[in-house]
Amino acid sequence: MPHIDLPEGIPGIRSLFEYRPETAQPLLGLVEVLLRGPSPLSRGERELIASYVSRLNECRFCEMTHSSFAALQLDDDWDLVESVKDDPAGAAISDKLRALLVIAAAVQRSGRDVTEGEVAAARAEGATDVEIHDTVLIAAAFCMFNRYVDGLATWTPEDPAAYLPRARILVEHGYLAPVSYPKP
Amino acid sequence: MPHIDLPEGIPGIRSLFEYRPETAQPLLGLVEVLLRGPSPLSRGERELIASYVSRLNECRFCEMTHSSFAALQLDDDWDLVESVKDDPAGAAISDKLRALLVIAAAVQRSGRDVTEGEVAAARAEGATDVEIHDTVLIAAAFCMFNRYVDGLATWTPEDPAAYLPRARILVEHGYLAPVSYPKP
Repeated sequence: MPHIDLPEGIPGIRSLFEYRPETAQPLLGLVEVLLRGPSPLSRGERELIASYVSRLNECRFCEMTHSSFAALQLDDDWDLVESVKDDPAGAAISDKLRALLVIAAAVQRSGRDVTEGEVAAARAEGATDVEIHDTVLIAAAFCMFNRYVDGLATWTPEDPAAYLPRARILVEHGYLAPVSYPKP
Repeated sequence: MPHIDLPEGIPGIRSLFEYRPETAQPLLGLVEVLLRGPSPLSRGERELIASYVSRLNECRFCEMTHSSFAALQLDDDWDLVESVKDDPAGAAISDKLRALLVIAAAVQRSGRDVTEGEVAAARAEGATDVEIHDTVLIAAAFCMFNRYVDGLATWTPEDPAAYLPRARILVEHGYLAPVSYPKP
């Protein structure tokens, strides 16, 4: 049960967006530009970083949400998404993305954990400054979103299929598109 | 030295805002509404939560920045701000704010660490749902800002006095006001 009186029947962070629209607006603006705006990283890659950090933070709602957003934007390759979260070192991704995920994992622990060696390793695989920047900010942002969602104990639907309709809307229309919910 | 090529002579998160204005806009919009917009918590109290979480994350730039923003909005009581960061249990603050800081500290560790008992304790001291919500989101947001600032190893001026001119502008004009820097 949520720690505060949230609108019923609306899952995860969406219930918080309904509860406090003042903060919803900049939060949605951030995630739209960060995960879908211009970046040398593809939308699928950025959602993969988001789902990996959410797994590390054990935020089930965000993990399932962004795993579905990632899979739909990575040729529907759901197995790839699971393998990245389970073991990025062995997953079938580029060495550049693998090196960026090492940085993301460091950020998840603490910003102070990112080492010069990790940054140099990403650069050696071809990562640019903007890619390193975006990776750090995505990882940092999901340390916020994960804490927001779990810190207020929002409702997490257990069935992964429940995340699909929303994922399809997201891929087509983005984070700022209005979402409607059935009345409870 | 920063991990990426940031504009010189601009401290902390401000160098990241200059580097990537696309993400700066929603980040500044978030912090403006969260720390200065309508809320039952005063601006000083909200900055106090921000500086306390930044201390817990050992983010020196954010701690010094938001400590100065807090002190200037709490009757210039710099000793109070230091005492809250050192030991919120013994600081001269309301029992409600003390209970909210316990929640903030839990969020800093993990969203999953916030307990029903901690929320009930805050409620027993008079905290409302909106106050609990805003506390959780402020703590979560600074888990992002702290990681963003340190994850890219931005420049942190060591002299606390260096933070004062910016703090005075912030208190009067808010986070969205333009900031000018001397050319390096």
